[in-house]
Amino acid sequence: MTDGITRLEEHRCHDGVQGFYEHASAVVGLPMRFGVYVPPQAANGTVPVLYCLAGLTCNEQTFAIKAGAQQHAAAHGLVLVTPDTSPRGTGIAEADADWDFGSGAGFYLDATRSPYAAHWRMESWLLQELPQVLARHFPVRQDRAGILGHSMGGHGALTLALRHPDRFRSVSAFAPISAPGEVPWGQKAFRGYLGEDQAAWARHDAVRLIEQGARVPPLLVDQGLDDQFLATQLKPERLEQACAAAGQPLELRRHPGYDHGYFFIQSFVADHLAHHAALLRA
Amino acid sequence: MTDGITRLEEHRCHDGVQGFYEHASAVVGLPMRFGVYVPPQAANGTVPVLYCLAGLTCNEQTFAIKAGAQQHAAAHGLVLVTPDTSPRGTGIAEADADWDFGSGAGFYLDATRSPYAAHWRMESWLLQELPQVLARHFPVRQDRAGILGHSMGGHGALTLALRHPDRFRSVSAFAPISAPGEVPWGQKAFRGYLGEDQAAWARHDAVRLIEQGARVPPLLVDQGLDDQFLATQLKPERLEQACAAAGQPLELRRHPGYDHGYFFIQSFVADHLAHHAALLRA
Repeated sequence: MTDGITRLEEHRCHDGVQGFYEHASAVVGLPMRFGVYVPPQAANGTVPVLYCLAGLTCNEQTFAIKAGAQQHAAAHGLVLVTPDTSPRGTGIAEADADWDFGSGAGFYLDATRSPYAAHWRMESWLLQELPQVLARHFPVRQDRAGILGHSMGGHGALTLALRHPDRFRSVSAFAPISAPGEVPWGQKAFRGYLGEDQAAWARHDAVRLIEQGARVPPLLVDQGLDDQFLATQLKPERLEQACAAAGQPLELRRHPGYDHGYFFIQSFVADHLAHHAALLRA
Repeated sequence: MTDGITRLEEHRCHDGVQGFYEHASAVVGLPMRFGVYVPPQAANGTVPVLYCLAGLTCNEQTFAIKAGAQQHAAAHGLVLVTPDTSPRGTGIAEADADWDFGSGAGFYLDATRSPYAAHWRMESWLLQELPQVLARHFPVRQDRAGILGHSMGGHGALTLALRHPDRFRSVSAFAPISAPGEVPWGQKAFRGYLGEDQAAWARHDAVRLIEQGARVPPLLVDQGLDDQFLATQLKPERLEQACAAAGQPLELRRHPGYDHGYFFIQSFVADHLAHHAALLRA
């Protein structure tokens, strides 16, 4: 059933529907799961779509359950899409050995290194195949897409938008891994998925992409100052420096007391949905 | 440390703090866990408290993670308390055998039957001990308490308020078990915790309590019409009949398409928090 999707769950939510689905992904070569929230406005036609990318260890349900975004999607008339964070059931034993690499840690790129190149094709899945699946089964406007993400998903939102500037009209992130080539999580992922080619790393590093001339719509980034990964893995100051040097608009908000989790995300998700709605509905 | 609490987690959330705690409960005879959300208004003094009771299989984190209530507690200035749903680690093997009885299924009463009577003392914990713990460690106004609950927790909210009308100024429920003595979940719990004494059952049955003259402030109850447990376990029409016959004010809202889960709760939680705030802050 390469053209179809399997409905796993559907729940009415804020006058719309929060569903979870699976499809046989040709690009990944395995079944892939994703969540879709369809707001009430979709009863009258297609609406803009906001991709919401989750972080390490998360799956297609995490953001949908914990972020509290549906109420704002319902207010603004946005479809929310929450993709799983990696292929699952690949049969590669080492992919399940660590929580920060492999399963649940796809880093939103196409791996080039064996054994990951066979299935870890998250960028192709998200940019090529999933939009086609969505277009066939959900009331989305393909020409009005935004992207946000958290942590590893913040890295994904920034880099996918920077690499495909024609595809996303709005971009934001919560506590993103801003310079993955400079921090342990990113270095481990890049080494495992891409090998030692530093030029390949740079093509999936938000700071390096901006330094090399890539541009996106004005960025909104929220960062908690009690985030346990702030100094070692996230480095928002590197994003700030790169945007300032490049003239890339960035609103970086630092929030005292907030940590890395979904209680932080739920506190500011309204602002992110408003940011996307303003650009997607303009 | 019978007078102290152990802090398990604390997270800044909507300018307040969502925490999870454990204390050595003398009443239960075991450590008991609970969540507390303290809103920003508490920086200026004590504020009203809303107890939020969860359903079968849930724990002290479930409502705090999934309901999206903190934003409204922060807007209205309410402390939220989310107690665990049963004792844990009791050493009673049969207590872990079923998902709808024993662990995660305390039904908010004091058991009288062996072996449960030793630890299943949820009503005494919630009404006597936990309020004292809260008063010592959190900025709560003991004279301004409300209670809400979901499913088994809806049963708990209704029956605890009906049994202790001097303790709660506001009461509401999502999809409550309205007449536990008439449905399988409730009958199983009552038989296991209370034995066969039908008079004892009636003292923990919202419909029977109302029929016997108990009264509470005006009730707000939301019920999804696609709730998989509606006809077999919840029976809101029995609550409606009892309230109408007794002159007990009840606003029972039936919502087409909504099911039993937290996507339903998050859709209407704003109305519940406003209902409680209006009565608690009056």
